[in-house]
Amino acid sequence: MTGVKVSLDSPPRSLGDIGRFHSASVYCGLKSADPGRGQGDLTLVWNEGPCQAAGVFTRNKVAAAPVIISKDRLESGTARAIVVNAGNANCCTGKQGNTDALETARLAAALVGAGEEEVLIASTGVIGRPMPMEKIRSGLDAIAPLVGPGGGGDPATAIMTTDTVPKPASVRASVGSLEFSIAGIAKGAGMIAPDMATMLSFLVTDIAVEPGLLRRALTTAADQSLNRVTIDGDTSTNDTLIILADGSAGGEELADESSDLYDAFTSALTAVCIELSKAIARDGEGAEHFVEVNVSGAADDNQATRAARTVADSPLVKTAIAGADPNWGRILAAVGRAGVDFEPAKATVSVCDVEVYSKGEPRPENEELAGAELKKPDVIISIKLDLGSGSSRIWTCDLTHGYIEINADYHT
Amino acid sequence: MTGVKVSLDSPPRSLGDIGRFHSASVYCGLKSADPGRGQGDLTLVWNEGPCQAAGVFTRNKVAAAPVIISKDRLESGTARAIVVNAGNANCCTGKQGNTDALETARLAAALVGAGEEEVLIASTGVIGRPMPMEKIRSGLDAIAPLVGPGGGGDPATAIMTTDTVPKPASVRASVGSLEFSIAGIAKGAGMIAPDMATMLSFLVTDIAVEPGLLRRALTTAADQSLNRVTIDGDTSTNDTLIILADGSAGGEELADESSDLYDAFTSALTAVCIELSKAIARDGEGAEHFVEVNVSGAADDNQATRAARTVADSPLVKTAIAGADPNWGRILAAVGRAGVDFEPAKATVSVCDVEVYSKGEPRPENEELAGAELKKPDVIISIKLDLGSGSSRIWTCDLTHGYIEINADYHT
Repeated sequence: MTGVKVSLDSPPRSLGDIGRFHSASVYCGLKSADPGRGQGDLTLVWNEGPCQAAGVFTRNKVAAAPVIISKDRLESGTARAIVVNAGNANCCTGKQGNTDALETARLAAALVGAGEEEVLIASTGVIGRPMPMEKIRSGLDAIAPLVGPGGGGDPATAIMTTDTVPKPASVRASVGSLEFSIAGIAKGAGMIAPDMATMLSFLVTDIAVEPGLLRRALTTAADQSLNRVTIDGDTSTNDTLIILADGSAGGEELADESSDLYDAFTSALTAVCIELSKAIARDGEGAEHFVEVNVSGAADDNQATRAARTVADSPLVKTAIAGADPNWGRILAAVGRAGVDFEPAKATVSVCDVEVYSKGEPRPENEELAGAELKKPDVIISIKLDLGSGSSRIWTCDLTHGYIEINADYHT
Repeated sequence: MTGVKVSLDSPPRSLGDIGRFHSASVYCGLKSADPGRGQGDLTLVWNEGPCQAAGVFTRNKVAAAPVIISKDRLESGTARAIVVNAGNANCCTGKQGNTDALETARLAAALVGAGEEEVLIASTGVIGRPMPMEKIRSGLDAIAPLVGPGGGGDPATAIMTTDTVPKPASVRASVGSLEFSIAGIAKGAGMIAPDMATMLSFLVTDIAVEPGLLRRALTTAADQSLNRVTIDGDTSTNDTLIILADGSAGGEELADESSDLYDAFTSALTAVCIELSKAIARDGEGAEHFVEVNVSGAADDNQATRAARTVADSPLVKTAIAGADPNWGRILAAVGRAGVDFEPAKATVSVCDVEVYSKGEPRPENEELAGAELKKPDVIISIKLDLGSGSSRIWTCDLTHGYIEINADYHT
């Protein structure tokens, strides 16, 4: 790649800063009443015209109504708006759930002057509760006056559920004289696991990309990012990753997979998605530590991923990190049950760059230092298997009382 | 089977009540000091003579030194004693760990007049800490005067770690005029998952069984019992299930797999192992609910097991049960990611016999009743897939603050 630049924005720009995209968010009462926080729970993202569009969705066999509808509509490769609610997943809601999702999209389409089929839909929240449509309708009424260049509210905040911080990310890239941008938002927190690790994530870009290629780039980016996040091993029924491209940056449509532009676009997209993925792991339900699990020296990359994922999902490893204990025994035991080639006598385990187990022998002299490192919020666990050249990494968080509070005590 | 009787004892008999078996347990300081509880942490189980013996062990590629030694010694099909310590797993302890385990078995052999190779060994506790051999030696010195018909201490209590109650079970069986017994003890609590779900379990019987057949019967029983328990999905490095048979009940050696006696023996063994398995799940780390997950109508039994296990391991399902919430959405979502044939529109979910989701539609009218049932300590989750005749069940417990306290806060 020559003449290619990709740089993350700090602070990130919002969806409405890209091309002809806009967004508006309001609070309509779907989330448990907390209007004081000004979060909003209903969001409309739209473009002034039709866009190229692609999506990646949950592989769970229980898919929510909005997932089924959006997936179907994306077959066309075009869309113009996305309507998103937080607070109710509209999942396992029977036929009524489908009817409700269709009505929501229809009402949103009318607001932005789009065709009904041009509106995608996504929901997150509790499973199995009927969608309170009167709230959705009044929410969309409240969005109506915001439909204009300025929009209103913050979509990154409005899509949050148990998230504690909004998760935006954006990137600016150039290839020769063509400059383009990608901005995205994500929400995560719990029920996040392979495959398609994000709960909800929406991306917009101002270059034009042939829809098949847009989907390919999105899948590539997701495999390097959102599919590498796990919070609790549970896969959501609503996982949705959507990208819209409006071509307002000019230039020809990106249609050549072997071009510098495709490489630059995929790199930029992956960079944004990695930012969002790390933010999701960092804000996992109850998380006190952000954890990256690196496996190298595996027989192949797939085995490395399986080993890293098993360590990242192990409740015993996650609770040890919560307790700032460099418990390499639990780490090794997780690798040992991962179903991958593994010889404990060859393995080396480091916690935050401190070796605690080297080629079959414990390193007790290093445990105090490793324990001190674990008091810091960011943790890297490195496992060298010394068997081959496979490597992988997975992002997760620790397992704390906070997770139990969120997931067991929510009704009380 | 004609003239076959199998009945569980209530209260259970102990290992020393069977045939010529005896046991002695002492406290030697391996467990964090709590002698007031009188638990003991070092146990010797022995027979007055050589026994037929079989074992089933962890499939984790990280196997503790005692596992490797016992597995090897059981190749002979005979053994006479088992020495067990709680408080230190002697796992990932390098070459010294192997030396220490061999010394422990040698000292134990001398106490009961057995050959060194006739002593099996098992350890449970923290991974990766050198075995404090001076404590083991003084513990075995304390056991020496107890080696006699009376023995001393309670082995079911002495093998406990984070367990809150001892777990003994025994059964009396007869086939025609032959009466025989099986007694067992188990400890579990955490890091319990497929395959070989028990942490440690030891069984003794007074009939004579050809060692190959003894192993077959043990494997069959374990598949119906201990391999169906999961606490946290983590598989221990030390899982050990051993049975010794001394033939003191008389009768011919059981050597025919198609005999009534083999069926009776396997039934009796399975009954004891199921009792132990349920006791392990009920006493899972931090458990407030015992949970049985039943899946029926699956494409086949393997798919049923996979679905049941995924539900049983789901942190979101386990926390929902902790919160007494009949959250069938999380249950369906877990089945949806289990990688089994599944059509949500055909599925029915019951919580404690109350249908909360019937063939694709929620049953909100039943949720209050189901929630009330979940306040009780024993929970049955039934999932009917309506696709085939496969069925299975898995035992587990809920995921509570107690689990986090035990596994994150243990160093503080």
